[in-house]
Amino acid sequence: MNSDFKIVPAESLKNFCRDVFIRLNVPPDDARTVAEVLVAADLRGIDSHGVARMRRYVKGLKDGIMFPDPRMEIKHETPLSALLDGAAALGQVAGKKGMEIAVAKAVEKGAGFVAVRNSNHFGIAGYYSQMALAHDLIGIALTNSTPDVVPTFGREVILGTNPISVAVPGGSETPYVLDMSTAVITSGKLESRGRMGRKIPLGWAVDEKGEPCDDPARVYANMRGKRGGGLLPLGGAGEEFGGHKGYGLGLLVDIFSGVLSASANTTLLYPKTPEGKPLPSRVGHFLGALRVDLFRPLDGFKADMDDLIRRLKNSPKADGQERIYIPGEKEFELEKKYRREGIPLYFKVFEDLKALAEEAEVFFPL
Amino acid sequence: MNSDFKIVPAESLKNFCRDVFIRLNVPPDDARTVAEVLVAADLRGIDSHGVARMRRYVKGLKDGIMFPDPRMEIKHETPLSALLDGAAALGQVAGKKGMEIAVAKAVEKGAGFVAVRNSNHFGIAGYYSQMALAHDLIGIALTNSTPDVVPTFGREVILGTNPISVAVPGGSETPYVLDMSTAVITSGKLESRGRMGRKIPLGWAVDEKGEPCDDPARVYANMRGKRGGGLLPLGGAGEEFGGHKGYGLGLLVDIFSGVLSASANTTLLYPKTPEGKPLPSRVGHFLGALRVDLFRPLDGFKADMDDLIRRLKNSPKADGQERIYIPGEKEFELEKKYRREGIPLYFKVFEDLKALAEEAEVFFPL
Repeated sequence: MNSDFKIVPAESLKNFCRDVFIRLNVPPDDARTVAEVLVAADLRGIDSHGVARMRRYVKGLKDGIMFPDPRMEIKHETPLSALLDGAAALGQVAGKKGMEIAVAKAVEKGAGFVAVRNSNHFGIAGYYSQMALAHDLIGIALTNSTPDVVPTFGREVILGTNPISVAVPGGSETPYVLDMSTAVITSGKLESRGRMGRKIPLGWAVDEKGEPCDDPARVYANMRGKRGGGLLPLGGAGEEFGGHKGYGLGLLVDIFSGVLSASANTTLLYPKTPEGKPLPSRVGHFLGALRVDLFRPLDGFKADMDDLIRRLKNSPKADGQERIYIPGEKEFELEKKYRREGIPLYFKVFEDLKALAEEAEVFFPL
Repeated sequence: MNSDFKIVPAESLKNFCRDVFIRLNVPPDDARTVAEVLVAADLRGIDSHGVARMRRYVKGLKDGIMFPDPRMEIKHETPLSALLDGAAALGQVAGKKGMEIAVAKAVEKGAGFVAVRNSNHFGIAGYYSQMALAHDLIGIALTNSTPDVVPTFGREVILGTNPISVAVPGGSETPYVLDMSTAVITSGKLESRGRMGRKIPLGWAVDEKGEPCDDPARVYANMRGKRGGGLLPLGGAGEEFGGHKGYGLGLLVDIFSGVLSASANTTLLYPKTPEGKPLPSRVGHFLGALRVDLFRPLDGFKADMDDLIRRLKNSPKADGQERIYIPGEKEFELEKKYRREGIPLYFKVFEDLKALAEEAEVFFPL
């Protein structure tokens, strides 16, 4: 670790974030939830979705896009399902609540599905899918998000990077945890390449004409300014390498998160008043939990999961490669390390948190 | 249409296929099911999964890998779920039966999920997901398949092209029907490029060392001979363009189809006796159906689906492109055309069906 980073203990970082949200009138339990989801991202090495985004949420609360203590409400319910209205809550609060409902229904009835409407950006989808693992359930979490992705043959951003996360309980092996955007990359990666002044590979993004583009700053500015161009769906441009599949998956996530929840599809997210004042984002999520013993006893399932994982990991490696990873495995290893040694924060992020502490008049323990 | 093709009416083609299966001791209703699923693929332009594969099923029945009239059995059942043992039935028969159970449960209880074990290759996954549409349900169909795909950083085929199909009811617009393999391409595309003596783009497949390879014949021979190499997951080699995501999705399909069904993961499919005699394939499927009104009334949902689809289709096109397609749309248009004008069969496929008719002593009406 070099001097670009400052190592901070996970618990102190979490407490600090919690205190900032409490200062912004978020009830203590909810403030802890938001802090927990943010730090969970940093612990797993997904720093684009971690505490580096504190300002986004602070701004959201100050601008009135996110409400600190709204009355979330179940608008429709069946033994298997619920429609939860997030009432513009912080996405982490609405997402966690939704997943708790899904898990409780699955424990009792075998399966539970919750569509969440009128929520906000909820951080990493993998946090919610993994809530199912403690109950030996399969967990599913989807969300729509800021339009950043150009559909196949299009040149305007219509879909978010709309992630899919599925967590599956395992035996003695690391559990399978998929947590992937349905685009080639996320906007965070584009930003960081832009900051470093580096080109991006052709195949990540397109320019305002829909042509391949290797200039991340140009793509980012176009995307946010809705001047055309943006990230490509998983599989890249056109159909030759399956870009229409990534686009199809991104659209599926939008259908489940935005349409099934009666919230808003991606094109309608982040509305503004006629005067340009931002309104609550209307982000939607879809959360699900499923009992394994709907089909077979849990023990045999876990043993077979371990067997499959071992066969994969023990299979021959490509020249120059030493390991085959199971989805989520790299992140579990980082989490173990960072819990022990502390989380490496970019110095710039650390400095920004320090400034935030002063502004919010919150003790900075790091 | 040029002379490489013979145009045949869909109904005659279906009846002919049905008669071949009846001659092989498949009960008439089941024979019709298999014929229907095969011709559905040709109607949608997915000729790799259509009647061109008649010999594969005929051989399967003759070799005793597929049983013409087995006693399929529900091994476990809950109000929401079932584990169906296909008893080595033709995959289409087991798949359709499984989806019928899932649909019936969803109509009654809101959701239905069926894991199918001991089945066989079931043709296009999209046939089963679309069975849900007639009931205004969301349909899901997954299956594992012959190991053809190399995991990220590996060099041996461990996963199938393991498709994901999801169908969502729409209003007046074409319904959303995703039916995608989780690999960059399917083995059928590799074969056809090989037959034409054409190179393939780097990024579709790897050779026996796990290096990018543009020779389809070499990849195909390696793959089938298990000499290393095979197709790449969606997103391509390594992680730079998201290949680990395609790999993660393929593994997810194997978990749901092979592990949850207590059937066999991909590495264990298509077993042989010590003497090399093929045994039933142990292919597994996962089928699901979900009511929209678990979350919101159907009418509003359909109207919002139409709205989303129109926004997508009306959004600006990339330079040189004229249309943005919804998943499944191209296939619906082909089906309309082919139902009206007849299905164009490669002359070679047509000739082969004719030969098959003679061998099976079945009237050839085409």
